Amino acid sequence: MCTAATYQTKDFYFGRTLDYEFSYCDEVTITPRNYPFHFRMMGEMKHHYAIIGMAYVMEQYPLYYDAVNEKGLGIAGLNFVGNAYYRKAVPHRDNVAQFELIPWILGQCSSVQEARMLLERINLLDTPFNERLPLAQLHWLIADRYEAITLEAVKEGIRVYNNPAGVLTNNPPFNMQMFQLNNFMQLSANDPENHFSSKLSLKAYSRGMGALGLPGDWSSQSRFIRAAFSKLNSISGDSEAESISQFFHILGSVGQIRGCCEVGDGKFEITIYTSCCNTDRGIYYYTTYGNHQITAVDMYRENLDGNLLARYPLIQGEQILIQNG
Amino acid sequence: MCTAATYQTKDFYFGRTLDYEFSYCDEVTITPRNYPFHFRMMGEMKHHYAIIGMAYVMEQYPLYYDAVNEKGLGIAGLNFVGNAYYRKAVPHRDNVAQFELIPWILGQCSSVQEARMLLERINLLDTPFNERLPLAQLHWLIADRYEAITLEAVKEGIRVYNNPAGVLTNNPPFNMQMFQLNNFMQLSANDPENHFSSKLSLKAYSRGMGALGLPGDWSSQSRFIRAAFSKLNSISGDSEAESISQFFHILGSVGQIRGCCEVGDGKFEITIYTSCCNTDRGIYYYTTYGNHQITAVDMYRENLDGNLLARYPLIQGEQILIQNG
Amino acid sequence: MCTAATYQTKDFYFGRTLDYEFSYCDEVTITPRNYPFHFRMMGEMKHHYAIIGMAYVMEQYPLYYDAVNEKGLGIAGLNFVGNAYYRKAVPHRDNVAQFELIPWILGQCSSVQEARMLLERINLLDTPFNERLPLAQLHWLIADRYEAITLEAVKEGIRVYNNPAGVLTNNPPFNMQMFQLNNFMQLSANDPENHFSSKLSLKAYSRGMGALGLPGDWSSQSRFIRAAFSKLNSISGDSEAESISQFFHILGSVGQIRGCCEVGDGKFEITIYTSCCNTDRGIYYYTTYGNHQITAVDMYRENLDGNLLARYPLIQGEQILIQNG
Amino acid sequence: MCTAATYQTKDFYFGRTLDYEFSYCDEVTITPRNYPFHFRMMGEMKHHYAIIGMAYVMEQYPLYYDAVNEKGLGIAGLNFVGNAYYRKAVPHRDNVAQFELIPWILGQCSSVQEARMLLERINLLDTPFNERLPLAQLHWLIADRYEAITLEAVKEGIRVYNNPAGVLTNNPPFNMQMFQLNNFMQLSANDPENHFSSKLSLKAYSRGMGALGLPGDWSSQSRFIRAAFSKLNSISGDSEAESISQFFHILGSVGQIRGCCEVGDGKFEITIYTSCCNTDRGIYYYTTYGNHQITAVDMYRENLDGNLLARYPLIQGEQILIQNG
Repeated sequence: MCTAATYQTKDFYFGRTLDYEFSYCDEVTITPRNYPFHFRMMGEMKHHYAIIGMAYVMEQYPLYYDAVNEKGLGIAGLNFVGNAYYRKAVPHRDNVAQFELIPWILGQCSSVQEARMLLERINLLDTPFNERLPLAQLHWLIADRYEAITLEAVKEGIRVYNNPAGVLTNNPPFNMQMFQLNNFMQLSANDPENHFSSKLSLKAYSRGMGALGLPGDWSSQSRFIRAAFSKLNSISGDSEAESISQFFHILGSVGQIRGCCEVGDGKFEITIYTSCCNTDRGIYYYTTYGNHQITAVDMYRENLDGNLLARYPLIQGEQILIQNG
Repeated sequence: MCTAATYQTKDFYFGRTLDYEFSYCDEVTITPRNYPFHFRMMGEMKHHYAIIGMAYVMEQYPLYYDAVNEKGLGIAGLNFVGNAYYRKAVPHRDNVAQFELIPWILGQCSSVQEARMLLERINLLDTPFNERLPLAQLHWLIADRYEAITLEAVKEGIRVYNNPAGVLTNNPPFNMQMFQLNNFMQLSANDPENHFSSKLSLKAYSRGMGALGLPGDWSSQSRFIRAAFSKLNSISGDSEAESISQFFHILGSVGQIRGCCEVGDGKFEITIYTSCCNTDRGIYYYTTYGNHQITAVDMYRENLDGNLLARYPLIQGEQILIQNG
Repeated sequence: MCTAATYQTKDFYFGRTLDYEFSYCDEVTITPRNYPFHFRMMGEMKHHYAIIGMAYVMEQYPLYYDAVNEKGLGIAGLNFVGNAYYRKAVPHRDNVAQFELIPWILGQCSSVQEARMLLERINLLDTPFNERLPLAQLHWLIADRYEAITLEAVKEGIRVYNNPAGVLTNNPPFNMQMFQLNNFMQLSANDPENHFSSKLSLKAYSRGMGALGLPGDWSSQSRFIRAAFSKLNSISGDSEAESISQFFHILGSVGQIRGCCEVGDGKFEITIYTSCCNTDRGIYYYTTYGNHQITAVDMYRENLDGNLLARYPLIQGEQILIQNG
Repeated sequence: MCTAATYQTKDFYFGRTLDYEFSYCDEVTITPRNYPFHFRMMGEMKHHYAIIGMAYVMEQYPLYYDAVNEKGLGIAGLNFVGNAYYRKAVPHRDNVAQFELIPWILGQCSSVQEARMLLERINLLDTPFNERLPLAQLHWLIADRYEAITLEAVKEGIRVYNNPAGVLTNNPPFNMQMFQLNNFMQLSANDPENHFSSKLSLKAYSRGMGALGLPGDWSSQSRFIRAAFSKLNSISGDSEAESISQFFHILGSVGQIRGCCEVGDGKFEITIYTSCCNTDRGIYYYTTYGNHQITAVDMYRENLDGNLLARYPLIQGEQILIQNG
């Protein structure tokens, strides 16, 4: 499945892993300000904020998995299978197809606060992009440097949750994920103390025992808890290199390893890519399962006033530096 | 602390993480065949197998943390604080200082089998390298493509254990680490089945739930269990790039993240470096905490018949590729 | 806190633990058919089904914690602090004070099916019994031999959940409790199999390892999981003695031990009493923390057509049989 | 399997559970001072301390599972399958058959200190009682009010461990059991504090969350940890009734429930009996799986200067008190 997280140093970073057993041809895709978005029910958006993110581009349309706009607002869509519930169009609401959500929000909102207002009117439609693409069941992490929220469309309606952890994975619904963190409140980055019994001379035989109890598997609830712990206890310098490096370490703690999660028919879930976008500088960094080196695409090296998508296929193979070559 | 692991595809790979709160100036160091080793009690070894590995070089002496020789035998020393027990010299034994173990074995053994024989006579000395370097307390993973063993010098004497997991971390002693794996035997890379009760319709709400119960913290026992699961369930192609990539994913599952393990005084344990050596081809690959790109040093690009160390300081900063640069 | 459970052999059993740091003067209390219930907003109920259960009797009013009526319907109220939400009276609803719920349901319903219909109209009031008794925050297990449900009054309204586990504890809300069972679906009463790795010869070194991962603490979520496992895997003969004995073993697995759960000021939560009512025969069995012997009160030994409560204070001290006395 | 524990209030208590899928005809058995013990290799012991405990009496010989002598020294033998290792007789050692250990120690030692001295010379023999009784594989908890030790005969020889927990179960060997307690040192009878992250307002939603992580299954390692926690955190009054009651609550936390531990062929492990002996007063209390009432046998009501065993078959059925009978 997937894990998304935010990270704040001097700049604000927003990224995610995408875990799956195969990859569509994902590309880092920049949508400039004058690329026209034709919404199914909401008309045309001719001009909008520029957007950078990971997308599967189909019929010249960027189906974003995660993206950030030039104002520093980020959204990532993550699998929410079995719980997502989209609807038919209704009057007096913003009827936005599920696959249109990211352009809809990033095109016109400069902050989470603005997104919250827009979401008050939203009705997410169960319209697929086309007949060959099944409707994805997603929920979303939306964040800027001031706050993060989780958006869920469930049977009971639209839910917008404050997300103080700045982390999202998949099932169960977000309020249940957050509740489970209560069960791990005693975990610590510091050495444990002996509260078991004063009659026993128990000791920390290893560093790192303060976090004993942290789940290590790759289910969505366990990844949520582990990513939250890693991110919230994280410490790094605030330079660009240190911040990015640290972000990839945080998401590295929930990366899927080929072989550890079989999904049937001898297929295995892996972390197809991991991304980290500096939302202040519009630089999208990524690694792929097969390439540990961090690659970057800089939004501002493109013509943001254009009307054509700029697309960068992912660099896939290990880029190894031979030091004595 | 640290985690070491082996990995077999077409070639045999041997590597480790080194976790600590600061770094000595570690260097990838190649010791050619005619660099003379002067053992404290065992005389001089003028000619020996060539060795590549990570070392702190002091007074022209390579204090190896982990290394591989040209025959494909590898050794890694890992912290074993509180349990390691070294002795004074005794007659009729091979009196080898703790810091001399890696040259002693790699210099003259072409296989684990040969190392086993040599270890029958060994007595590990508590002699420090010099008065400024405290005696490290270590145990060792020794492996070739046929088998892996763990070497421990404890109060009760020298212990050589078969290591079918091909993984080593730190405390407790290896037999206790292996025993604990029994408690996790039901963990699986496959989806869980409902054995709780046939009266309840329980379901896997996420992929990856078969490994629920896998510990996710960074204590040495939890890293042992997690690395063993990741490694033993690992699946990859057998090309060099795929094998190496996979190996770094395996050890990535136990990497220490700055902030998640405080060791006092505001200092934090991090994974200083991660290594992976192709023991068949003598190529030593590594990443550092601050550089996700894999860097390689190829033993066979050096003059292996020389008598001078070849030393490569680690490349530390993120080597980021700007794709639209 | 508390744990309630149902159990079916030849007869149907319904019971609970009551965990707290002190006891009101609880009494096994039988309310005969003609004892008049004066509801605050719902008028008088002059004639009703006879009821037996544990109650704190105040001003001649039986404030039942758990009870069963002569038709075999049982209800137990359990703490639900922080989540329970009661309201003011509204028109066109059955406005029943929280403390009146048990008489309201047991007085007139012969089955869960009938209770379900009554609950469709209910509005639970936040009216305290009197000014000295604070309003308890509860949710309820309601069960007969055919089905069990959980009733919760939360901020969002009245919730009636099917309860296929036939178990209830306290927080979080019931749907979240049930969801968590998914994380334990692989637990089993049988020996575990090795799915960790076929390369390791792992073994069950003890009986009972199939349930490794079952939580053993006394928090409400852990008790829910443990009681569900114990109850759903339970096997016993179907005689009265065997059934009752087994029921007390099931709830014994979640009993609170003095000292293991401090609630402040040197006070400790203990299992004040454990009950098990044969709903078919109207016999209420109980043990107290200080008395392991099972004591019984038989409803049908009272005049059920009377209008006065029959009250039996709990036998508290250990009733030890001296075998060679 | 089994769990043994000690408990100190004003008097010293020693007891155990015996878990198995069927029962030999166990009897509370008092061996008076002049009952002659004929040891296989150690001659005759005509006079000795009086002993009370649970035994399977065969050919007039009390095969004790657990017992206490009139000096207040107690021993319990617990399954240790796969690790116990008994030997043939050797010169210059006390060659005691495994089944003779309890009479050998309790017959002549008034304290653990004296038992320690005797154990320095012991060689435990693999001699079965007779050809129909297979040799049990056991290890032992030996305790008086001053200290507790664990005795194990393993492949490496006789091991005597200090047992500061005063608890014993089964596999793995005792030193490994004690070591595992380090992993639970942060568990507490008090509410947890939030060390996960100061950025989240996590809360204890239930009492008893301080012990989250305590294992709840019935494997020997989990029972060891749970019984140690229950016992070491236990608080009770020091009267006889309060002490005994509390002791049965402690061992109740590790009681085996029929159905939760299948041992094959539709057979289930249950707690056949639970015992608690007041070692100061020589009173042996017990419950059986089918009888929750505590039954007692008082050693001093027998003629302790006799030479015949006094035997009390266990009372098995529920002794229910009808309160309104």
